[in-house]
Amino acid sequence: MAYELYYWSGIQGRGEFVRLALEEAGADYIDIARKPDSQGGGDTALMALLERDDIPHPPFAIPVLKDGDILIGQTAVILLYLGDRHQLAPRDEVKRLWTHQIQLTIADLVAEAHDTHHPLSAALYYEEQKPEALRRAEYFRKDRIPRFLGWFEEILARNPEGDRHLVGKAISYADLSLFQTVEGLLYAFPRSTKRTLKHVPRVAALHHAVAQGPRIRAYLESDRRVAFNEQGIFRHYPELDG
Amino acid sequence: MAYELYYWSGIQGRGEFVRLALEEAGADYIDIARKPDSQGGGDTALMALLERDDIPHPPFAIPVLKDGDILIGQTAVILLYLGDRHQLAPRDEVKRLWTHQIQLTIADLVAEAHDTHHPLSAALYYEEQKPEALRRAEYFRKDRIPRFLGWFEEILARNPEGDRHLVGKAISYADLSLFQTVEGLLYAFPRSTKRTLKHVPRVAALHHAVAQGPRIRAYLESDRRVAFNEQGIFRHYPELDG
Repeated sequence: MAYELYYWSGIQGRGEFVRLALEEAGADYIDIARKPDSQGGGDTALMALLERDDIPHPPFAIPVLKDGDILIGQTAVILLYLGDRHQLAPRDEVKRLWTHQIQLTIADLVAEAHDTHHPLSAALYYEEQKPEALRRAEYFRKDRIPRFLGWFEEILARNPEGDRHLVGKAISYADLSLFQTVEGLLYAFPRSTKRTLKHVPRVAALHHAVAQGPRIRAYLESDRRVAFNEQGIFRHYPELDG
Repeated sequence: MAYELYYWSGIQGRGEFVRLALEEAGADYIDIARKPDSQGGGDTALMALLERDDIPHPPFAIPVLKDGDILIGQTAVILLYLGDRHQLAPRDEVKRLWTHQIQLTIADLVAEAHDTHHPLSAALYYEEQKPEALRRAEYFRKDRIPRFLGWFEEILARNPEGDRHLVGKAISYADLSLFQTVEGLLYAFPRSTKRTLKHVPRVAALHHAVAQGPRIRAYLESDRRVAFNEQGIFRHYPELDG
């Protein structure tokens, strides 16, 4: 039975980390909200899921992955689940947990990237918190992007099985997620990110290599890939870049 | 061999979620930074760990748990690991992932609680971002605390095995973490949190019951429990409460 992904149809957002894993796995999946409303799709299908009162494990938010009767929320938990089923993480327990640890650190970075344009409240528009966004973005660009990307560079360099992957010697969901994060940073903060990438050649190489993988390349060129835009997590507001 | 916990000696912070799990498990552990410097302890021991260049899986940040040769970072990954080893999560895979999903939602709430006093940058003092903190805290109090605690209430009500635990019919690390989160909210935002708790009786009952468990009660009364203070995640600045 095909997986069902519940996520906003118009943005990459956190759902994109799941889409990339499903695409790399070659898994059969339905991106529910991108189906027509007449076929039970559309963003209304997402709300309907979150409002159902007969689900024993109701998720707090989307993305949600449905696998038969199993519903899973939280991006990193979905990836932990898919990683085991589609060889997108090592089987060895220590390496498997390390992959998950990297993913949660990526999640921290992604949350901070979001808050550059929404430092005060997700209930206000960017335009209503722009002075604060300018200050938070400056700190993010100067301190946080270099610190996070520097850590990824370091763990690539220390990987005993080679510096082409974050964990082990094959692609994992952590590699896919780092690719997506660098993509997002390049979209949102092109000047600062390009500058930082010069100092982290292994991260830059991994970003390039993931995009060249046959399944990911086909996905990126397809209309299944939503373009970045100013509704998602990574938004390009030139004034927030350095 | 005893576990080693690497976390700041002077705050509860994210390390407290790990301490509570270790205490409930009755596990043998050493809280490294609370040992004297002369015995390899103190906060300098934490820095020394993060600066070692011979670790294949160097953590991005603390808390870190050391179990023999295994080093694990990210609070939720540490709890996933301890949950399996000390029956602090169900063995059934779906429930085990659900426990982890709840933990990651708690982690999101904790990160938002931190940002109420640091909305712009962790590199600035609270006093340097106080007007912004006032605005972010108002949103957090009015929208986010009710939304998160309402979700915990709902999943307690829906637990097929009873509303005394978030998952299954025994205590899990998710219960311990929800206890700690409510403790923190009551410390930081006593007026708003007490008001909200009236509407989520199951959450209030779980918070009370966890504190009465024999091991947790003994821990809370011991000097191993650091008091809340204005260096941690949950800080009481009266002007930020409602």
